[in-house]
Amino acid sequence: MESHDYDLLVIGSGPGGQKAAIAAAKLGKRVAVVERRGMVGGVCTQTGTIPSKTLREAVLYLTGYAMRGLYGESYRVKQDITVQDLLARTHFVIGREVEVIRNQLQRNRVDLLSGAARFLDEHAVEVLGERRGEHQTVTASKIVVATGTKPARPPSVEFDDRRVVDSDGILAMEAIPASMVVVGAGVIGIEYASMFAALGTRVTVVERRPAMLDFCDAEVVESLKFHLRDLAVTFRFGEEVSGVSVSERGTVTTLASGKKIAAETVMYSAGRQGVTEELAVEKAGLEADARGRLKVDEHYRTVVPHIYAVGDVIGFPALAATSMEQGRQAAYHAFGEPAGRSDAALAPYGIYTIPEVSYCGATEAELTERSVPYEVGIARYRELARGQIVGDDYGMLKLLVSPTDHALLGVHVFGTSATELVHVGQAIMGCGGTVDYLVDAVLNYPTLSEAYKVAALDATNKIRALQAFG
Amino acid sequence: MESHDYDLLVIGSGPGGQKAAIAAAKLGKRVAVVERRGMVGGVCTQTGTIPSKTLREAVLYLTGYAMRGLYGESYRVKQDITVQDLLARTHFVIGREVEVIRNQLQRNRVDLLSGAARFLDEHAVEVLGERRGEHQTVTASKIVVATGTKPARPPSVEFDDRRVVDSDGILAMEAIPASMVVVGAGVIGIEYASMFAALGTRVTVVERRPAMLDFCDAEVVESLKFHLRDLAVTFRFGEEVSGVSVSERGTVTTLASGKKIAAETVMYSAGRQGVTEELAVEKAGLEADARGRLKVDEHYRTVVPHIYAVGDVIGFPALAATSMEQGRQAAYHAFGEPAGRSDAALAPYGIYTIPEVSYCGATEAELTERSVPYEVGIARYRELARGQIVGDDYGMLKLLVSPTDHALLGVHVFGTSATELVHVGQAIMGCGGTVDYLVDAVLNYPTLSEAYKVAALDATNKIRALQAFG
Repeated sequence: MESHDYDLLVIGSGPGGQKAAIAAAKLGKRVAVVERRGMVGGVCTQTGTIPSKTLREAVLYLTGYAMRGLYGESYRVKQDITVQDLLARTHFVIGREVEVIRNQLQRNRVDLLSGAARFLDEHAVEVLGERRGEHQTVTASKIVVATGTKPARPPSVEFDDRRVVDSDGILAMEAIPASMVVVGAGVIGIEYASMFAALGTRVTVVERRPAMLDFCDAEVVESLKFHLRDLAVTFRFGEEVSGVSVSERGTVTTLASGKKIAAETVMYSAGRQGVTEELAVEKAGLEADARGRLKVDEHYRTVVPHIYAVGDVIGFPALAATSMEQGRQAAYHAFGEPAGRSDAALAPYGIYTIPEVSYCGATEAELTERSVPYEVGIARYRELARGQIVGDDYGMLKLLVSPTDHALLGVHVFGTSATELVHVGQAIMGCGGTVDYLVDAVLNYPTLSEAYKVAALDATNKIRALQAFG
Repeated sequence: MESHDYDLLVIGSGPGGQKAAIAAAKLGKRVAVVERRGMVGGVCTQTGTIPSKTLREAVLYLTGYAMRGLYGESYRVKQDITVQDLLARTHFVIGREVEVIRNQLQRNRVDLLSGAARFLDEHAVEVLGERRGEHQTVTASKIVVATGTKPARPPSVEFDDRRVVDSDGILAMEAIPASMVVVGAGVIGIEYASMFAALGTRVTVVERRPAMLDFCDAEVVESLKFHLRDLAVTFRFGEEVSGVSVSERGTVTTLASGKKIAAETVMYSAGRQGVTEELAVEKAGLEADARGRLKVDEHYRTVVPHIYAVGDVIGFPALAATSMEQGRQAAYHAFGEPAGRSDAALAPYGIYTIPEVSYCGATEAELTERSVPYEVGIARYRELARGQIVGDDYGMLKLLVSPTDHALLGVHVFGTSATELVHVGQAIMGCGGTVDYLVDAVLNYPTLSEAYKVAALDATNKIRALQAFG
């Protein structure tokens, strides 16, 4: 066996890289993580998930959004919310998160190498430091590439990072714009659209496709659109941007249909591409596709068997939670440690819009397509004591239940704490439970979790009524 | 078969009564609920659970308590919080909840009879209306008694509902007191003690027993005590009140040990007793015990087989969630409908202190007592991205795991959303899952639910490390 500096070298310290490093360290391996200065935690921590979710929490809190059901539409904790109000908190949380990551790596004796990584060969990586000429070469038996993605910038658009920005640049904004065009109604686009709408920005969403979030429950997406329109969002589906002109007074976005939209700011959220260019992957015998992504097998191995790739750089689904699990699985596989396989079909989707959306399992459309019969059980938050206490009169939870064996086929949640609540349904599905478990369960009162019992009774009563007809 | 006015008459419209009535109505029965005017929803809605949990939410929100981790100790949404601020919301929520209950009863064609119920015989009940002489007699084949409890008032104490109050009278307070003595460290006492402490009231808790909440995890209770002391709460365990004197300037509570405590307000929270006195239960052949409670069998039947009793009036555990399930079970049994039996051992406890506490399954003390080996897995909120986003740096989740078959034996949660989060662990336990489900699960990021995966990995790593020693 060759002698390398490390048993495992991880390139990138986002969720996937972190978990790969820590899993290997816990197996007693010598591990290092390479990360550029100021980028500990990756895009997730620095410009993506963490800042956007923290911003969202600040928006919810400072606008008093959640309390409007109780204190009235015009209720606000703070009258004039500035970017400083919103971002003070964001910087604070990023700083704490970086501390936590550093601490976890340190406690597990993982070396953190500061600099940009570049492959020299399939076992050697050069780490280029900040200062000119500062560099070191490290070798490792196994390597995990977890370099993530960056926003794709259409060449036809001139980004000035002030009036025309991408989703990674949104945090550098100097003021909350009075109006904004969001190009692309994917998850990131709609999350930001809803946040700015809650802040009072007039938002127009332009999306090439005829619909948005079409992997979600159709009723939930309709509820979301209804709420966003109520916050003065305009949707332009099936429309393309043909050009954006910028002046001192703002921007004008021209659509292919001839419509023109004036707005202070334009945010592009039109896909992301893998960060592999500066990595010289070809030196290691790897090749990235046109969108900068690496191909892996079911064990997250690239074509070079001792080099793994995890997280957004391998493409779909590009969710932090999934990346973490991939990182752990890759590390376990690299060192021959058996790891249970997670059931990918049960991974939940969490969309941090205002209001939030989450689901796991199948949608009604999928079940209908596959000719799987189901009964629907619905609970509305406004019928729950906790829904009234938190002032959420729009939230709802929907269970899709097999009328024959009572299995849960899908759980769809819209409203306060949706991304947390979905895990109860996921656990029932993952542990082989049925709707009968919920019918008989005693749940804390008053909680939003009671929605599960209410929806379970609704579905069960419908199934019983049908059975009465034989 | 005799002909009665109703198939089922329910006395009391609290959680147990409501669910009994609706379950029977859904089975196609003719159902009526008797409730006194202004008491729809019972003590739960009018003076107990709902107002206290709404008050708690208002306290959390208006004091900015949850945000102190981020904005600093002195952060407040509102500088001078008045009783009006706190109660405006409470009255609003009570009103909405009453509407929901009325609506649900109406939709299910349950008659709501307004007045105080009194048994005439074992099938007939007299309903006495507000106005003198206004009364009607109704008969029913089956009867459910769900009359609940009221605070027990020690005869030695003079309650004036102003300076010396019980927990049902706390909502009538005119101002937030600068200081308060809470007598009794049961769930209700500690919930109010923590709320007033968060509001800035100097609270002294006097408890006869040497400890509090001793059915909960000991570490969690210690954390709670630590937090309450940090909010200037003083505990006097193992002490008894020998007298309370009241003057214009306030109260002085004297303990048997000779200590004297001056405070603006004294709140007694020293047990509750069943509401059966005015019900003339003896006319139906029933007898209440010294604390006003009715005895029932495992189907919630009293000694008179067609009369059931559910909820707080039958004693332990006197939780709204449990009462609801009892109501449903009683109605099903009364009409010969099979109902799954809920696993009482899996019913969670939710304590709405600030911070909140919840658990289900066994405690470490119980397992040790029973000589059941376990491993502990812990996750701290401050190591979770969501913990930082919501500013909770004290929360924690503890899993107790069987080192042999990996079964979850107990879940203990302290901190933000504890009463919601516990249901994930409960579902795993209730559906026969193990810690392995959590180790492999993909959970939404960033959520507090991730605590489950972190704790599961912690427990599993410890179990693996021990196994390495053979």
